[in-house]
Amino acid sequence: MKSATHYMTFNTKKHREYINITDEVEKVVAESGIAEGMVLVSAMHITAGVFVNDAESGLLADIDDWLEALAPYRDEYRHHRTGETNGDAHLKNLLVHHEVILPITKGRLDLGPWQQVYYAEFDGQRRKRLVIKAMGE
Amino acid sequence: MKSATHYMTFNTKKHREYINITDEVEKVVAESGIAEGMVLVSAMHITAGVFVNDAESGLLADIDDWLEALAPYRDEYRHHRTGETNGDAHLKNLLVHHEVILPITKGRLDLGPWQQVYYAEFDGQRRKRLVIKAMGE
Amino acid sequence: MKSATHYMTFNTKKHREYINITDEVEKVVAESGIAEGMVLVSAMHITAGVFVNDAESGLLADIDDWLEALAPYRDEYRHHRTGETNGDAHLKNLLVHHEVILPITKGRLDLGPWQQVYYAEFDGQRRKRLVIKAMGE
Repeated sequence: MKSATHYMTFNTKKHREYINITDEVEKVVAESGIAEGMVLVSAMHITAGVFVNDAESGLLADIDDWLEALAPYRDEYRHHRTGETNGDAHLKNLLVHHEVILPITKGRLDLGPWQQVYYAEFDGQRRKRLVIKAMGE
Repeated sequence: MKSATHYMTFNTKKHREYINITDEVEKVVAESGIAEGMVLVSAMHITAGVFVNDAESGLLADIDDWLEALAPYRDEYRHHRTGETNGDAHLKNLLVHHEVILPITKGRLDLGPWQQVYYAEFDGQRRKRLVIKAMGE
Repeated sequence: MKSATHYMTFNTKKHREYINITDEVEKVVAESGIAEGMVLVSAMHITAGVFVNDAESGLLADIDDWLEALAPYRDEYRHHRTGETNGDAHLKNLLVHHEVILPITKGRLDLGPWQQVYYAEFDGQRRKRLVIKAMGE
């Protein structure tokens, strides 16, 4: 069995931001020497997520609107009694999820033609981390 | 380490459709010879998903209504400026997710008695693919 | 390749309840002797979920309110024609998902400082099961 572990750090300019990390994941897979296996892409925070969708700017704006509609900012979250103001970011994380796991076949990410991997920042403008972990043979 | 990779193709009659693929996943696991491991079931499209739930037709109709309520068809999605009309299918994919990963124990899918694996088509009536990848020993 | 499989059972006092199982998952990882790998944490029911978020009681109450708002109890779910009354629990399960997969690095869960693993019960007061499966080397 082979494995490879790679960390990425983000410090987004905007409060919410969606960053295409497909090339970085593909690079970790290539350097791991793994032909058949799986790669886990996992945000190390509870106010960020990872998802697979289309690299189309209109769609990313639709996704952002939709996440704000389903998990909106609200003053009155109980979580805000702790002094935090990011309750909505926790709920957006639950909706999108913090991780995806992707197949590796013949040494490549085994994705469909439109599938791109995104890091979704919901509470940015500070240092955040993500782990990419490949495993296989 | 052993691994097995199997592709399925779908071409649904309806625009949205939910297809029980548990037997196909179980068959890939059985043929892989893997006793202990995991199996990834992943749609290769950004307008389809995979989920685990109950094989009950009333519930599947409830799920379909619920997905349409939370991620409805709308003319005005920005994504539609590209000529597409399937913005809602992308959002339904985000809600349901494109993949599940399931445990393999003693050569079998280690699921509870009511857990069934579904391919969820949100933009059908054309050829779509899914990958099943098992890994273990 | 090494693997380890551990089952947990729950019988919650409340209909809905959120239980921090991070220590139990960490213990399975430690006892497995796996240095590099992944661990799957998967509810064996279609009316329960697993998620990763913050161990903060106000936030857990916010999450519960939010799940009830997005996937509410309703008399009129078609699923209830079978005699069941837990249609909302199935939808909450779809929203939260039944599983997470976590990286293992240097023999430890490779999580961020605030990430805690929760079992989310949506239809409790009876015996439910969960499987923790670690795999790696």
